[in-house]
Amino acid sequence: MNFADRLQAAVAQKDSPCVLGLDAHLDLLPEAFAVARDPKAARSERAAAVAEFLCQLIDLAADRVAVVKPQSAFFELFGADGAEAWEKVVAHAHDAGLLVIGDVKRGDIASTAAAYATALLEGPGEAPDHRLCDAVTVNAFLGHDSIEPFLEVCRRAGRGIFVLVRTSNPGSEDFQTFGEPSLSHRLALATHRWGWDLRGECGLSAVGAVVGATHPRILGEMRELMPHTPFLLPGFGAQGARPADVLGAFTSREGAALVSSSRGVAFAYRQKANVGRHWRDAASDALDAMVGGVRDALTSR
Amino acid sequence: MNFADRLQAAVAQKDSPCVLGLDAHLDLLPEAFAVARDPKAARSERAAAVAEFLCQLIDLAADRVAVVKPQSAFFELFGADGAEAWEKVVAHAHDAGLLVIGDVKRGDIASTAAAYATALLEGPGEAPDHRLCDAVTVNAFLGHDSIEPFLEVCRRAGRGIFVLVRTSNPGSEDFQTFGEPSLSHRLALATHRWGWDLRGECGLSAVGAVVGATHPRILGEMRELMPHTPFLLPGFGAQGARPADVLGAFTSREGAALVSSSRGVAFAYRQKANVGRHWRDAASDALDAMVGGVRDALTSR
Repeated sequence: MNFADRLQAAVAQKDSPCVLGLDAHLDLLPEAFAVARDPKAARSERAAAVAEFLCQLIDLAADRVAVVKPQSAFFELFGADGAEAWEKVVAHAHDAGLLVIGDVKRGDIASTAAAYATALLEGPGEAPDHRLCDAVTVNAFLGHDSIEPFLEVCRRAGRGIFVLVRTSNPGSEDFQTFGEPSLSHRLALATHRWGWDLRGECGLSAVGAVVGATHPRILGEMRELMPHTPFLLPGFGAQGARPADVLGAFTSREGAALVSSSRGVAFAYRQKANVGRHWRDAASDALDAMVGGVRDALTSR
Repeated sequence: MNFADRLQAAVAQKDSPCVLGLDAHLDLLPEAFAVARDPKAARSERAAAVAEFLCQLIDLAADRVAVVKPQSAFFELFGADGAEAWEKVVAHAHDAGLLVIGDVKRGDIASTAAAYATALLEGPGEAPDHRLCDAVTVNAFLGHDSIEPFLEVCRRAGRGIFVLVRTSNPGSEDFQTFGEPSLSHRLALATHRWGWDLRGECGLSAVGAVVGATHPRILGEMRELMPHTPFLLPGFGAQGARPADVLGAFTSREGAALVSSSRGVAFAYRQKANVGRHWRDAASDALDAMVGGVRDALTSR
């Protein structure tokens, strides 16, 4: 089944285009998981604490989001122990009925890209493996031959990718916005083209685009360039984007845009308004606010 | 100690600017390691076979190269078992007295880039850890805030990075060469700037550049833009570059350019001329030919 169709069904079922980012910033973890940031503790124990926190966060959010997006860097921090934690978290998310977009931003020459695509989306073995992702983020800087192996796996295994088109960070203006048309514009055209043959029954493609929610003014332009492309919009919440900012990315098709928040939900307990509250309560309220805010903005547009 | 100084000393000691790429293409592995490509075999057994092959390759090459460059994708293929194999191979290379450039091509927003830099170069614990890399390749598409956390670690821990400036693959022309000046040109200027304060006593910087050896005509231009930058030149051998092609990247400073071959050495036994020979003998001869060829070209320029 095409990834876009699976994505649309999942978003429809939860009535929520929200994605929970799983970014285990060690410094921000609640005290109960403080062993994760203890440089004297065993690496395996530290990785296990990260996995435990994220699994609890998944359980908390599973009724309100369709998708989680684990960030690989915070797992790789713990080497092989972190890789084990990653597999545990991905499997836990699948068990909770969620889709998983691995935020790995890989990009390499063709034969290497094929290994990454197999590693993350398809697995090297014969048996189905629920430690694999449904989709991953990819960096297309190396060009078409760095993406094509992913497209093959998407086609063969019903998986998806989200190509970095315009990222949410301040540095995105260093290289992505220069040129006429800009690098991001060229990446958008390429993403649209790569995804054309991977459209599902819902009309959306299994090839998505990452466009920072922090750039509300360009979302409409990006949508025109990529009418069939699911947008993954990071930067909601902690990075500053609000519900009204992301409307330009949505279309009449459910699943056309996914709004992602990481720190704003997971670490809401650290906000001034939440001093003294349990991290779960603060996260749950932040999640409600996000889901409700996006839903209201979509209804009233 | 600055990474560039360590690099220069290592290159001088071996009298070889050659890097052995450790790319474990499963389909190309010698029969003795065929379990690595058996989808029915246990994942741990497959990963262990990859590690064993690469460790033997390291032992074979350790007297003729100063640096090895493992490619993370072929390890990630086996998930947590692959991560364990990666650590084993990196540690083995260090034990053999070699520097390790992890070919990981990571690139992400600031807080995440910091996690990658710690993960790969510095480690999350207190003890020195020889499973870490001396340097890694990075993708600067996300801009300055995706690189700065790496620079901090380079400064603090004596590590290095190699920024992708112009890659060796055909798709490098899709995005890297457009614009006036081109994206690669802009990346070269940024790489020079990022590395300025990280020059070692040898005059070279701990911030290097990846420039495909497959583009001989631009190496001179790149060298002018980045006079203090160590160049990592992949694409030698199997991807088509020859000794004369890479001369433009070298300067009078030892360590200014590193020529990297992966398949051309590791899988030389598959070449027509080597039918029936043991993979070690073929690899050893290919390594001699590479090291000798580059040395001769440098002497006669």
